[in-house]
Amino acid sequence: MGNALTPEDIVRDGRKAPSDVAEYALRLGDDALVLAQRLGWWIARAPEIEEDIALANIALDELGHARSFLSYAGSAWGKNEDDLAYFRDEPEWRSAHIFELPNGDFAHTIVRQFAVSHFQCELYARLAASADETLAAIAAKAVKEVDYHRDHSVHWLLRLALGTEESERRTRIALDDVWPYVDELFRDDALIDALPHVAVRPSELRPSFDAAVSSVLAEAGLESSTRFTARGGGRDGIHSEHLGTLLAEMQVLARQHPGLSW
Amino acid sequence: MGNALTPEDIVRDGRKAPSDVAEYALRLGDDALVLAQRLGWWIARAPEIEEDIALANIALDELGHARSFLSYAGSAWGKNEDDLAYFRDEPEWRSAHIFELPNGDFAHTIVRQFAVSHFQCELYARLAASADETLAAIAAKAVKEVDYHRDHSVHWLLRLALGTEESERRTRIALDDVWPYVDELFRDDALIDALPHVAVRPSELRPSFDAAVSSVLAEAGLESSTRFTARGGGRDGIHSEHLGTLLAEMQVLARQHPGLSW
Repeated sequence: MGNALTPEDIVRDGRKAPSDVAEYALRLGDDALVLAQRLGWWIARAPEIEEDIALANIALDELGHARSFLSYAGSAWGKNEDDLAYFRDEPEWRSAHIFELPNGDFAHTIVRQFAVSHFQCELYARLAASADETLAAIAAKAVKEVDYHRDHSVHWLLRLALGTEESERRTRIALDDVWPYVDELFRDDALIDALPHVAVRPSELRPSFDAAVSSVLAEAGLESSTRFTARGGGRDGIHSEHLGTLLAEMQVLARQHPGLSW
Repeated sequence: MGNALTPEDIVRDGRKAPSDVAEYALRLGDDALVLAQRLGWWIARAPEIEEDIALANIALDELGHARSFLSYAGSAWGKNEDDLAYFRDEPEWRSAHIFELPNGDFAHTIVRQFAVSHFQCELYARLAASADETLAAIAAKAVKEVDYHRDHSVHWLLRLALGTEESERRTRIALDDVWPYVDELFRDDALIDALPHVAVRPSELRPSFDAAVSSVLAEAGLESSTRFTARGGGRDGIHSEHLGTLLAEMQVLARQHPGLSW
C-alpha cells in the first residue's frame, strides 16, 4: 500500500490486527507516545522561540504515529487509541526506557532525540516493507517525518558540540547519560521471532544505526559512551521510576471522568 | 500589504517600529506568548489524543504570532524576539490577566480559549486595516488561524455545556471563574489614544464580541457571569501571582546561558 493511513481509516476499514501483531504495534505506539509527552514539555521552554516550535512539531508528529499504531493495536482487543493511552497501568506499557528518560537540560533532550530518531528512521524504513499492510502503511508515512526529526537532531548535536565550551561539556555529559539506554532498542525477543516478515528484527538495525551515528559523532568530535548498559525491560512492562510520573500526568484527566464525552 | 510576514522578513526588511507602535506590538505579542505557554501544557494531557494535537497546534499558531509581534516590537529597541521573550522581568510584560490564568481543568481552558479567541478574532480582523503596514500584515495572516481557534472553542463549549451533568457543571464554574477577566481586554488607555488609525480601540470591539459570544452561550444554555470585575493592570505591567511562575519556567534555560548559541 504505502499510502498515508489515519487512525480513522484503520477504524473505518475494520482492520483487525492479529494479537501478536497488536503487541508489536503497541511497542511502537508506546515509544512514540511517551516521546511526544516528553517533547511537549519544551513548548515555550526551549532556548529560542523558533526551537519551541520545532520541538512541538516533532512531538505532534510522534503523537500522530502513536495514534495510528495504538488504533491498530486496539483493533485486536476492541479498544480505541484513547483506551490504550489513558487506561493502561505502568506494567502494561511496552515503551523502551530511553523514551521515558527525563528531559534533563536541552543537551539531554537533543542527544536522546539523536538516538531515537536514528532508530525510528531505520526501523520505519524497513517496516514500510512489512507483510502486514497496515503496519507498512503507517511506517511509510511516519518515516518521512522521522527523517526530518533526524536531520533536526543532527543539526543541533553539531551545533552544541561545536558551539561553546559549556555547550560541548553539556553534550558530553548528555551522551554519557543517554547512551547506556540505546542497547535496549536493538534486542530481539520471542515476539519478534514469532513475526517473521511482519516485525523488523531490532538486532538487524544496529549496523546501519551505528554507521550513521558514528559518522555524526566523529564530525562532532564526540564518542558514544559505553560506561555501562542499562538493564532495560520496557518491552516486558518493567519500567524505570520515571514512567509512573509521566503516566500520572498524562492520564489524570481521562481517569477522573471515565466515560465522559470530554 | 496583507501578505504573510515572518519574523525573518521583519528583520531582513529592516522594518523599524516607532516606539509607541512597538509598545502596542508588545502587548499583542505578550498575550499570544503567554497563551501559547499555557496551552502547550496540554500536550498529552487532554482527554483525547486527538485533542492534545488540536491544542498543541493552537499553541503553535500563537507562538508564531508572538514571534512576529515581538520581532517587530524589538526592532524599535535593537532587540530580537528571544531577548524580549527570555530577558524581560515580570513588570515589563504587557499581557492581559486572562492569558496568564492557570489552565484549571479542561473546561477552564476551553472557556478561556472561547473568550480570548473571540477577542483576538475581532482585534486582528480590524488590525489588518491598520495604517502601520507591518502590524496589518501580521494581523492579516493571524486572523485566519485565530478564526479556526474560535471555531474549535465554540465546538468544545457546546460539547461540554450540552454533554453530561458533570461537564455542564464544570463549564458553569469555569465561566464564573474566567469571565471577570474579560473586561480588561476592552479597556482603552493613553497608548491607544496616541495611535489613531494604527492601534485598534479595544472598547470598539466590545459590541461585536458580546454579540458573537452571547449567541453561543445562549445555544449552550449558559449565561456569562458578572459576579465581579477583575482589577486588571496587565497593560501597565501589574500582573497576578501566576505570571511569575510561568515566566520562571519559560526563561530559566535561556537565562542560565545568556549569550550561548543554544
